[in-house]
Parts: sequence; C-alpha cells; structure tokens
Amino acid sequence: MTESTKISKKVIERLSEYRTALDEQSAGEQRNIFSHELARLCGVTAAQVRRDLMSIGFSGSSAKGYDINELKQTVSDFLGFGEERRVVLVGIGHLGRALLDFFVNRHPKLVVCAGFDVNEMRINRVIHGVRCYAVSEMERVVAENRAQVGIITVPESAAQETAERLVEAGVTGVLNFAPVQLRVPGHVFVENLNISTVLEKVAYFAGLNADRERVTK
Amino acid sequence: MTESTKISKKVIERLSEYRTALDEQSAGEQRNIFSHELARLCGVTAAQVRRDLMSIGFSGSSAKGYDINELKQTVSDFLGFGEERRVVLVGIGHLGRALLDFFVNRHPKLVVCAGFDVNEMRINRVIHGVRCYAVSEMERVVAENRAQVGIITVPESAAQETAERLVEAGVTGVLNFAPVQLRVPGHVFVENLNISTVLEKVAYFAGLNADRERVTK
Repeated sequence: MTESTKISKKVIERLSEYRTALDEQSAGEQRNIFSHELARLCGVTAAQVRRDLMSIGFSGSSAKGYDINELKQTVSDFLGFGEERRVVLVGIGHLGRALLDFFVNRHPKLVVCAGFDVNEMRINRVIHGVRCYAVSEMERVVAENRAQVGIITVPESAAQETAERLVEAGVTGVLNFAPVQLRVPGHVFVENLNISTVLEKVAYFAGLNADRERVTK
Repeated sequence: MTESTKISKKVIERLSEYRTALDEQSAGEQRNIFSHELARLCGVTAAQVRRDLMSIGFSGSSAKGYDINELKQTVSDFLGFGEERRVVLVGIGHLGRALLDFFVNRHPKLVVCAGFDVNEMRINRVIHGVRCYAVSEMERVVAENRAQVGIITVPESAAQETAERLVEAGVTGVLNFAPVQLRVPGHVFVENLNISTVLEKVAYFAGLNADRERVTK
C-alpha cells in the first residue's frame, strides 16, 4: 500500500485508459501488444507506456511485447478492482440519470448501489436499475452498503452540504460535477469535473484553429 | 493571435475556472479580489493565479487586488467570448440530453444550435430548446450555422465516423465522450472526456484513503 500511494493521479488515469484499451483489444485475436501499439490507442508515447507499466512492476519482452491478458489482470489488480467498489450518486436530474444509465453494468467492479434526491417523484423508485432514496436516508444507506465513492450531480448551492454528508457517512472519494470547489477533510479524494469549463477550453482552441485555417487558405 | 497560441491547455482551463468563480463573486457586493482569494475559490495557489493572469497581460494592485469586473471582462475577451461560438451535439441519448439540458442558456456565448441522431423518434424534435436533425443533414446544418465545436456522445463504434463528418463540415474543436481515441487532422482540437476513467481514478484513491483510515483508526 505504501508503494502504491506514491503513484500520481496522472499515472492512475493512464493505467485506467490502458485497461479500457486492452479490454477492446482482448476481444480480438491478438494475444500480445507492443508498447507503441498501446500508446497509439491511448494517445500517449511508447516511452510513457513503458514507464507507467514499469512503475507498477510490469515489463514485456522486446520481441513479443506485453501479454494482453496478463497485463490486463495486473493493471486491474493494481487499480484495486479485485474487490467490488460501491458507488452512490446524489442528484438524479438529467445528468444523474445519464450517469446511472452510463455506469449500470458497464464496469464489473464499480457498482452504483444507490441514488439520492430531494424530489419526492424520484424517491423509492428504481431508475436504470438503481434504487433511489430520500437524501435524509443518506447516512444509513451509504453505511449499510459500505460505499466508498460518491458522485455529486446536485445543483451548485447544495454541493458542499452533500459532500459533507457523504464524507460523514464514510465516503472517501468524490466525483463532483457541480461547478464549485468543495472543502473536504484531507483523507477524502475529490475530482472536480466541470463540463462547462471543458467545453470552454474546446471552444477556445476551436476558435484559434478556425482562425488559422482561414489565414492559411 | 500568435501570442495567444502559446498559452497552454492547462492555463486556458484555469482561466475558464477563474471566470466561473468571478461570475459567482460579482453577484455579491465585493468589487475587488486578491489573488489568494481567487486561488482558494479555484483550488490553486496564489502564485499560480498571478502567473496565469500575467500571461494574458493582466495585473492587479497589491493594496486592492484585482478589480472583479475588469478581470472578468479581460478573461472573457481573451477566451474569445466576445463573439458567440456555435456548438452542435451528436448523439441524443441520455448523456446527450443531459448535456443539452445542462448547456442551454447556461453560457451566453456558447450556443448549442443543433443536435443530431440516427433515431427517427428524436429527429425533427426540439429537445431542451435545441432542434434535432438526422445525421444525414450534419454537413448542411453545421455549415449553415457555422458551428466550430462538436460534442460527441454517440456509442463507441460510431465515434470515429462522427468525428470525420464533423471535421469535414467545418468543426475545429471536438469534445468527445466516447471511450475511444479519435484520429483527426492536425488543425482540429480534441478533448477526450472518458467519465468511466475518471470514476476509476476516484475509486482507486477512495480505496487507498479508506485503507489508510482503517489503519490509523
């Protein structure tokens, strides 16, 4: 555990991307893959792939590359997907529903076990296979399910309180879609995913590129 | 234009976050903001804020900080939000709908002007205020709207073809939610947002943190 804590966020993200790419590959007939092939699939350099895999103690042969199944297993084990991780989602609006739909049955080891909302119409219903509860039941349901991960898709104004309740209930990792910076204790990992910010960035570079195209034409 | 092309992706992302944070601030009575205040709102260091703003030629006074309205205007102008940017979205499933709902009227200068789908049930309807067309009309509609940005929320298997058609129609920036690496010409900016990968990362660190908590308790 001490060793794995030194691995950076970026490496974890790439390992997760390698795993996804390998999933697709292993559906085919190919049994081995070279670092440059995996690199191309993931949009990184071959040296980066080799460095990342070395950091979790995995190496291939220069003649045959990496054994796909072995590599998949190693990365999955490293990412802790030997055991199931339980996830709850708070805020079952459009985005919440989309995420429920997206995650249900997509990942064998990341299981969305409950949803929460304040809207009576959504409470005690099963939405995309996930039972939805009143926010007032959060502490009980999170604890009973031993959920470690919380996804926040509530409006901005409710995000901080939601995070506090999730953490109080035992959650140690939060994926936050609300456009607000959450304050949480040091033992909680937070990833903010502000889709608006990402779209602004794309729009910025799209504009630059369009201007350049116009100049060169 | 040449100068702005040197600004990195990360800086653009942070500038966009500063802008969002300033929007919230300017609703209040505060007229000025210090770099350390803006830094705290955005989860970065004060030095980072000062560096980023200096890189677009903006500086404050050490006594009063930055003028909020002036700073907002400068960042917005820099990000190119003087003129409206038109966005299309391909794939009106759950995620596509959630994004339409999310973006409609949220951003004064980023306008989602059309949606596309292959499903007859969704074609020629107005969903969350956005007219949806058949994919076969993509070239015409993108060109007529002079859309520069495309959001891809189609299934994995259709993502590459969708990207090619968007680029062919004149799009120069793509926000891709499909878990696949797109191949596009060099003049097109692509941002991949694989929500599954992000959740895996959060789950990984949630697991580490939970283990640590257990050890220290």
